[in-house]
Parts: sequence; C-alpha cells; structure tokens
Amino acid sequence: MQIISSKDNEQIKAIKKLKEKKYRDETNEYIVEGIKLVKEAIEEKVNIKTIVICEDCEEESLKNATKPNTQIEQGLLYEIAKYECIYVTKKIFNMLSEVQTPQGILAVVEKGDSIENINYSEDIILALDGIQDPGNLGTILRTADSANLKQIILSENSADPYNPKVVRSTMGAIFRMNIIKTENLAKTLQMIKKHKFEIVATSLETNNSIYDITYKKKVIVIGNEANGVSKEIQDLSDEKVKIPMLGKTESLNASVAASILIYEYVREKLM
Amino acid sequence: MQIISSKDNEQIKAIKKLKEKKYRDETNEYIVEGIKLVKEAIEEKVNIKTIVICEDCEEESLKNATKPNTQIEQGLLYEIAKYECIYVTKKIFNMLSEVQTPQGILAVVEKGDSIENINYSEDIILALDGIQDPGNLGTILRTADSANLKQIILSENSADPYNPKVVRSTMGAIFRMNIIKTENLAKTLQMIKKHKFEIVATSLETNNSIYDITYKKKVIVIGNEANGVSKEIQDLSDEKVKIPMLGKTESLNASVAASILIYEYVREKLM
Repeated sequence: MQIISSKDNEQIKAIKKLKEKKYRDETNEYIVEGIKLVKEAIEEKVNIKTIVICEDCEEESLKNATKPNTQIEQGLLYEIAKYECIYVTKKIFNMLSEVQTPQGILAVVEKGDSIENINYSEDIILALDGIQDPGNLGTILRTADSANLKQIILSENSADPYNPKVVRSTMGAIFRMNIIKTENLAKTLQMIKKHKFEIVATSLETNNSIYDITYKKKVIVIGNEANGVSKEIQDLSDEKVKIPMLGKTESLNASVAASILIYEYVREKLM
Repeated sequence: MQIISSKDNEQIKAIKKLKEKKYRDETNEYIVEGIKLVKEAIEEKVNIKTIVICEDCEEESLKNATKPNTQIEQGLLYEIAKYECIYVTKKIFNMLSEVQTPQGILAVVEKGDSIENINYSEDIILALDGIQDPGNLGTILRTADSANLKQIILSENSADPYNPKVVRSTMGAIFRMNIIKTENLAKTLQMIKKHKFEIVATSLETNNSIYDITYKKKVIVIGNEANGVSKEIQDLSDEKVKIPMLGKTESLNASVAASILIYEYVREKLM
C-alpha cells in the first residue's frame, strides 16, 4: 500500500481544489468528511469517486473503522474497499480537511442533482431565494429532509450547498435530496407552475397567515436573511403569507422561518 | 474631552474583562456592541453603566450617530449624552470589540434578571436544558421574543446568554426577557409546578405528538443539541412530546425544534 506524503501529488492537488466553489462547479464533485458522513454517503448509494484515508492519524474512531473489531466496523471496511481508496499522511490529510479535529476519512463525491430530475409528484417543493449563510442553508436542508421534502431549488446568489460547512450541517440529508441551483429562479418557478404548482412567497406585506393556506402542490419560497424574498419572485407568486408574530421581534432567522413553514406542511399531512 | 489611549487604564481593563464569563458573573454586567443594539438597549430602558465610543473610527454610520445630520440621529446623540460616555482610540476600541468590523460604539449594561421576577401570569415558560451553542441560544431567544415569551429558564450547563455572540444574535430580544440561569433546573421546575404549570419535555421515546397537546400554563423544555432533555428532567415532566418526522433525518437542530414548538403555541393563541 502506497502512502501519499507529497502535497505536489496530482490527485491530492485536485482534491484540495474542491475546497473552492469554482472547482466544485467545474468538476461536479465535492468533499464529504468524517466517518458518519462517509458511511451515510455509502448507504445512500451516492457516486463516490475516491475515499481518502489518513494512514497515521491517531483517532481511535478511525482505527476502529479501518482496523475493525466489530461486525458493523467490518461492514464499513468491506464497504470502503469497494471504492478507490488512497492513503495519505496526517500532514496531507490535515491539508485537505476542513475541520479542527479531523477523523481521518473523507470522500470525493459526485453531485447528483439535475433540473430534469424534479419530482412533480411531491406535495411541496422548497425554493430558497438568496439564503447566504451556509449554517442556515444546512439547517434548512436538514429540516426539509426530516419532513421528507426532497426537491430544493436555489437561486444563483444562494450559498453553495456543496460548501463543506453546509454538507456537514445537513448531517447526511444532502445525499437524499435533489438540490437544483438555477441561474434564473423566476424562470424556473414559471416552469414549475406549469406542473400545477402554486408559488407561495413569505412576505411581511400581507395579512395572509401561514395558518390560512393549505400545503399541497405548493412551492414555498424562503427569502434572503436581510431582505426576504426578492420583488421579482413576489410578483410572480400566487399567494403571499407571513408568519404571524406576537412580540416586538419582527423577523425570524431564515432557517427558523423555513422550519415553521415546513412543519405546517407536516402538521397538515398528519391531521 | 479626554480620549483614552492606554490599555492599562483601569476602566478599560475592567470592560475588557467582561469578554470572559467569569467576570460577567462577578460583576453582573455585560457588553452590548453596535449602533442598533445600543439604541435598542436605550429604548428598552436597560440599566446602561457606560457607553464607549471610538473617537477615531472611520465608520460613516458612527459618524452619523455622534455627529448627526438628521433628527433621528440627533435623538440618539441626545440619548447617549444621558449616560456616562468614555471616548477611546481605535486601537483600544478594537481591543474591546468582538466583531470583525466594529461600528465604534458599545455599552456596558447591567443584567436585569432574577428568579424572583418570574411572571406566572404568562402562558408559556421556556426552559433550556443544556443548550450549548451560542448561536442556537441566541436564535431561540429571538424566536421566543417574536412569540412574546419572556420567561426563560436556563440550566447551569447552558451557554451564557450574556456571551457577546448570543447578545448579538438575539437582535435586541435579550433586553426584553427575564432570563434566569439556575444551578438546579429540576428544583426550579418543581418550584414552578407549584404555580400550576405543567412541565412538557421533548423526547424521542413517546408517541405523544406536539400537535396533541395544548399550550397553556406549560413549561416547554428543550434539550441539549446531542443528548436531548436530561433523564432527571424527563422524570419530573408531566408530559412528553415529540416532533413527528416524515423523513430519514431523525433529529432537528435545537433552535429549529424550539421554534416549531413555540409556533404551535402561537398557532393555538391565534386560532
């Protein structure tokens, strides 16, 4: 087994570049880091290109995973062995890693999303119009997955869902979703409308409450952290709704607002 | 007007120490930073001890606030002048500031919360059992304020609500709330129960849904990010509820879970 120790190795250089959005866009690949996330990527059958393992990292958890004692751990080892694995020194691994205490394993994964794959049989499609904080985006994707929403449309100016921070904070949800970044959100929403979906935009300038509408065949649009849903999208929406507030605070964190709406859908679905 | 330029100035040293929780606890004071938050602190009539102004900062926004052109700005100048103001150099201000691009104004404020002040006439008291991420705590306080919930009980192992990151992310909500950190959450909840409140704990081990209960005279307990509500608190609770999920993601971000519960209360209140 060869252990890569040079930062000039072509494969290492290519993986390192995936830390930048530009190269993730170019190659259609991204990085998934940590034992739990790599396991989930395998389970969800995403297209794993390479698994990078730190050969001299001392983390007990990775040792257990690659030199297994239990059946579950043997399972992971067996699974990992199906993919192209490369072994690197701790110095190289730390160069590729984005976290403070790396677990010594990461995978290069192909993005699997495409606008042709929108599933119009679902009740709710989520559209995010300019969500810019990676933490908010990750939290929204995690909440959407908990409600079994799989179709997510992102405007061009949104945070990159394949940013390592977003990937981590989705806690695996990203592997189960169809996340489509569109260059023209308005145009994409017009196209979705033809499939008998109504566009619902959150707005502060309406008396219509989120408790007044039904959650079937709707595209729910969540707006930017500071400015909300853009005027262009407000104008093409079929309904505007606001989250009614009782106190002096007049706006909510974007991921909180999205979650409250998503769980109105869950509520309706279960009632 | 004297401008302090020495980091050895006793008043500056005392303010700098407030960056640490230990000194915030000792002095019962904390730091509020930025034009908007200082304005809100003034409006909400919290006990402001000192206002620190950066004399040679170049931010336009601060110049407008301290050398005002408009009536609103004159109002702020007039308000600021009612308090003890100290003027410092940019170097000193940056030493006190916690943000990357300081706005050149901060205030030292007295904590106003006390367990004797719990208002039992309210419908909902929120209890946080080990919320450790300052961002989550700030978001929960902001959401609670948007629902006009003012009584917040924190367990000893929770993040410090007077941590600058929490203060910022509450966006002013912190000035309107009674936030009580208790050394013994179980004992405090037992005491609150005597005032005819029922304790509702979130739990994964119940079939009771958040949609099945009423939200009146309840203490809603939100648990730690990784481990949920502690066993001790589960045991003394009157009801356990879970947020029903439809997808594979089985847990939600703590601030999302809290927000979904808080908005069930809002929903009931408005229906």
